[in-house]
Amino acid sequence: MIVNMSDGATERQIEHIIQRIREAGFQPHVTRGTERTIVAAVGSGGRRHEIEALSVAPGVDNVVAIAQPFKLVSRQTRPQPSVVVVGGQKNGGVKIGAAEVVVIAGPCSVDSREQLLETAQGVKRAGATMLRGGAYKPRTSPYEFQGLGIEALKILREARELTGLPVVTEVMSTEDMDLICEYADMLQVGARNMQNFALLRRLATVKKPVLLKRGPSATVKEWLLAAEYLLSGGNDQVVLCERGIKTFETGMRNTFDLAAIALAKELSHLPVIADPSHGTGKQSLIGAVSRAAVAVGADGIIVEVHPCPERALSDGPQSLDLTQFEAVIRGLSAPLRPVLAPAL
Amino acid sequence: MIVNMSDGATERQIEHIIQRIREAGFQPHVTRGTERTIVAAVGSGGRRHEIEALSVAPGVDNVVAIAQPFKLVSRQTRPQPSVVVVGGQKNGGVKIGAAEVVVIAGPCSVDSREQLLETAQGVKRAGATMLRGGAYKPRTSPYEFQGLGIEALKILREARELTGLPVVTEVMSTEDMDLICEYADMLQVGARNMQNFALLRRLATVKKPVLLKRGPSATVKEWLLAAEYLLSGGNDQVVLCERGIKTFETGMRNTFDLAAIALAKELSHLPVIADPSHGTGKQSLIGAVSRAAVAVGADGIIVEVHPCPERALSDGPQSLDLTQFEAVIRGLSAPLRPVLAPAL
Amino acid sequence: MIVNMSDGATERQIEHIIQRIREAGFQPHVTRGTERTIVAAVGSGGRRHEIEALSVAPGVDNVVAIAQPFKLVSRQTRPQPSVVVVGGQKNGGVKIGAAEVVVIAGPCSVDSREQLLETAQGVKRAGATMLRGGAYKPRTSPYEFQGLGIEALKILREARELTGLPVVTEVMSTEDMDLICEYADMLQVGARNMQNFALLRRLATVKKPVLLKRGPSATVKEWLLAAEYLLSGGNDQVVLCERGIKTFETGMRNTFDLAAIALAKELSHLPVIADPSHGTGKQSLIGAVSRAAVAVGADGIIVEVHPCPERALSDGPQSLDLTQFEAVIRGLSAPLRPVLAPAL
Amino acid sequence: MIVNMSDGATERQIEHIIQRIREAGFQPHVTRGTERTIVAAVGSGGRRHEIEALSVAPGVDNVVAIAQPFKLVSRQTRPQPSVVVVGGQKNGGVKIGAAEVVVIAGPCSVDSREQLLETAQGVKRAGATMLRGGAYKPRTSPYEFQGLGIEALKILREARELTGLPVVTEVMSTEDMDLICEYADMLQVGARNMQNFALLRRLATVKKPVLLKRGPSATVKEWLLAAEYLLSGGNDQVVLCERGIKTFETGMRNTFDLAAIALAKELSHLPVIADPSHGTGKQSLIGAVSRAAVAVGADGIIVEVHPCPERALSDGPQSLDLTQFEAVIRGLSAPLRPVLAPAL
Repeated sequence: MIVNMSDGATERQIEHIIQRIREAGFQPHVTRGTERTIVAAVGSGGRRHEIEALSVAPGVDNVVAIAQPFKLVSRQTRPQPSVVVVGGQKNGGVKIGAAEVVVIAGPCSVDSREQLLETAQGVKRAGATMLRGGAYKPRTSPYEFQGLGIEALKILREARELTGLPVVTEVMSTEDMDLICEYADMLQVGARNMQNFALLRRLATVKKPVLLKRGPSATVKEWLLAAEYLLSGGNDQVVLCERGIKTFETGMRNTFDLAAIALAKELSHLPVIADPSHGTGKQSLIGAVSRAAVAVGADGIIVEVHPCPERALSDGPQSLDLTQFEAVIRGLSAPLRPVLAPAL
Repeated sequence: MIVNMSDGATERQIEHIIQRIREAGFQPHVTRGTERTIVAAVGSGGRRHEIEALSVAPGVDNVVAIAQPFKLVSRQTRPQPSVVVVGGQKNGGVKIGAAEVVVIAGPCSVDSREQLLETAQGVKRAGATMLRGGAYKPRTSPYEFQGLGIEALKILREARELTGLPVVTEVMSTEDMDLICEYADMLQVGARNMQNFALLRRLATVKKPVLLKRGPSATVKEWLLAAEYLLSGGNDQVVLCERGIKTFETGMRNTFDLAAIALAKELSHLPVIADPSHGTGKQSLIGAVSRAAVAVGADGIIVEVHPCPERALSDGPQSLDLTQFEAVIRGLSAPLRPVLAPAL
Repeated sequence: MIVNMSDGATERQIEHIIQRIREAGFQPHVTRGTERTIVAAVGSGGRRHEIEALSVAPGVDNVVAIAQPFKLVSRQTRPQPSVVVVGGQKNGGVKIGAAEVVVIAGPCSVDSREQLLETAQGVKRAGATMLRGGAYKPRTSPYEFQGLGIEALKILREARELTGLPVVTEVMSTEDMDLICEYADMLQVGARNMQNFALLRRLATVKKPVLLKRGPSATVKEWLLAAEYLLSGGNDQVVLCERGIKTFETGMRNTFDLAAIALAKELSHLPVIADPSHGTGKQSLIGAVSRAAVAVGADGIIVEVHPCPERALSDGPQSLDLTQFEAVIRGLSAPLRPVLAPAL
Repeated sequence: MIVNMSDGATERQIEHIIQRIREAGFQPHVTRGTERTIVAAVGSGGRRHEIEALSVAPGVDNVVAIAQPFKLVSRQTRPQPSVVVVGGQKNGGVKIGAAEVVVIAGPCSVDSREQLLETAQGVKRAGATMLRGGAYKPRTSPYEFQGLGIEALKILREARELTGLPVVTEVMSTEDMDLICEYADMLQVGARNMQNFALLRRLATVKKPVLLKRGPSATVKEWLLAAEYLLSGGNDQVVLCERGIKTFETGMRNTFDLAAIALAKELSHLPVIADPSHGTGKQSLIGAVSRAAVAVGADGIIVEVHPCPERALSDGPQSLDLTQFEAVIRGLSAPLRPVLAPAL
């Protein structure tokens, strides 16, 4: 870390910083410029927050961090991409992060047994290899449908038995965790819980893979630090999921940050998938952005599918019906549009 | 709610919408324009999500909600401002939302017994009427200081006994709730937990007032809906707290949305306080924005104070020392700058 | 447009609105709900701003627009995609919006004759079909390099003669327009000038195609309305360019809004290209996001290339060298990663 | 500036950076840490962009700037606050940045002679000391009212003669500048033109004070750099104006960044005023946020006032009528709400 002194910093103020850097467990390194002095805190064993707090010491202009704060999720720690295996009772499980792109599909919420079983069979027929479905739903308003809870978990298990598709479902609370672990193959952390650290700490101790959605206002760095909670706590079966961020744009539900997928994969070895349903909130755009997600390097997509979107208990406007979902899957195999060659 | 049909919508598509609106428990009302038709869903007993989902029905352009989705927190439900009383063992408690502005102060985290007791006595002397201090700290990185936990709670209780100041501290998890209720006078929901619905549902059943911070990417409407979880679950002792939102501006830690305080008070009867420490992240700006918070209508401020900010275990850069805090308090009583009168 | 009355609106207030809607040239249409009344302003010939201003009339809660405000750029006006032809002295010009994807490449700024000619020949060899290069540079600071001006225009013309590549360059001011029209084949409106309406009005009268970059905080709707200035003023040779928007994310220079390309193409018949260089600001991500841009439906990409990025007078960090650029072009023809097939 | 080498940077790569720093006119200063090496570029006469571009050199992780890029607008250059005098034919002009707060009021656009003269007399009676009114209007859509142009300028001059209030009006184009200079006392740069550098360069040569609005997505640093264009070009009669930024919040027209006023005044000696009308877009909030603007340190406010807001040709929803404006002015002199004193 680097402490930038103000233009008029006195020798005494610089001395004070040098001493504080030593107290914090780093070696100080001073560079005196014509206009200002900078003091680097060198070493890896010191207490970073003590250097950060020096920004309010007299004579200091600002403090700049130069190293990335995450470790276990970093490519520097582990250059090879990780592969996370989900399910596995049959057929060896679904590999996320391997050579092939994984398609996860299903309704936003489990509305009923009929709806889920019909969707599960339909998405499998179309080419999905995992099933999604919400049992516990985080809803902005207390008056909206909050999910069927344990009843939904039982229906999800029945669908898995019927289709062989491993199941991912959201966990909203440490109290539901044991129960959900019994029924699901993968636990999802919703976007609004990305920095629910109590939840992350418990998930770090669980023997199930975790799907960690990016928070609506989380930077890529904060997202990776949330994953770091899981890895440093003992669970390295983590898949990241980009689902759009909140910006000024109102033409879509979120701003789908597809470039962040490439950046996350550059910085981290963890697999990254994309959620085009929440990313755009618009049925009509899902085919195009799903192709873009694969093109940019996503290891999979997670898509909301409902037999009759206009009757869905949640997220109808962004859900595909089964026919539309088949078209999206087919689109993933179509070649890219050709490039105009230069005239010679 | 209003369903806007597309320009080329057919009679049959319009009929379908009319029927669906009836099925959802509303009365349909059709307005045929020269270019397009709109169908209003009239009534208050229907299922809103079924109307929302019609945005994907054939012939529909979009669906617009016209009424506010919150009820119990609304000024329409209760025109008079609410007053929340905190503490009360001595002197009748601190009233938030009454005629006078409340000042809550203390360190970001309880670092040690000495630090907290010194701060508590100092902030009381300067004019604070409540004490803040973190025992469980939400931290972006797992490698940062996570709080002293129960030890900090005991120190906070000691400080309350010493000074008479009621104590507010953050609760991060349903599992810690009973313990924290024993020690604290008010429970804080941190910004990153504003939409931790499991936490909100449990807090709704607790007999303590709640300080609900606005999430870093929450709209005022979403913030009020989070409060609605508390009121609809049985706890109406809720104080809102604006603490800055996340934007593109990097010159301050957050963008302190002072106008949102005026808006929240216009829409809701709940008291609203301001957190200038997180709102700006800069010691040097806290005096000015605290005055602005009072001017815009805040019922109080919550400020981070530390005997030695550059030695704070967290949030040093935005903490005031005791001398600076006294100046901030004095500034709250200074008159506004006079207005230039027109020449006659 | 729809005027939503407040819950307690009186008959007299409703009558006032009905009359105002008539005065504004629309027909009023009243729907009385159990809780509130809405009044629609029906018709296409009225004055919209008079209805918008009713939001402050007594008894009104809010006013909602339901139709899109743009006309000539809309798909509803012209369902078939437009094709814009650039250049054309030789080989019939470059078609943007046709079956093939167009690659535009070149340096951020024309730094010198040698640099530009080397780049122009190199990008042509690698597969580019148009040349970019800044003569007049919009720079955040007055102390940064502002471009070589007319000298750069002459060098660009020489490069075009040498390679046959049509040239696009930015116009920052109405005063430079005639000059730039003499030298360039396409005029670029920079992101920060997207709502420079004086510039747009002049460009509407020019006989050259225009490349209209999206503003860093412009919604897709505002972007299309900026294009509407060009079309309504007489110039329909317009290509849109997505180049990233400003958000809270600091890991990349901008948030590259790839989904907005799909949305813009759904709403408008105009061609849309993507600028991965400004969109991410990171050399290492440009290959991945360029593929994603083509996958999401972009009609082309515009990429910054410099023979020696670390010596560029501007935008070095996001420029590719010629070898990297060749790899990006090759990547555009590689097939998408295969999809994992379900186990049967 | 500081060049941070990657963890595995070789000696040869470090040598290359050292040499490049010398070539760019700085002295290199190397700090070798246990994990990584940093190289500072020391001195003030070098070419900054050459150091920035090193971020793509082999072995470099990133490049960090440590000094502020603006000079003439900085408090470091001129510690005392600047005072800008507007008008002055009568009564010595209006001083912005002096002891008293200045109130500028008037309609968004000059709609007619009657409307403007009535408003001018009314706002003067209520206590305004300057008049605003748009002759040339930047409008998002080409189909909206674009202003009366020269006719409006003549009406503004008549209003000034009638009331003695100096006039500020927006200039959108270099072509209108001479004309507007004849009629107006102060030239406004609208938010969307804040980085219209051609316009700024011309304004730098004009002998009139400039009101520079902050762009909707401009950081405080970018705003000050826009002002730096004016000062470095020769015009130091500059007043900054905060008018809200674009964020995800949809409950108000913009997010009014009141804290940025305090930050701008800390960094710069220039006067700063606030525009609560655009800052919130809501009539009902303008009183509260105007008080907050004065409390946070603004040197004045600029408010939209219209004799009949619901008949305004532009910005009706955020305009005050004369009675409301009087109440806002009165509110600026009311004392702040008292602070609850601690029980002893």
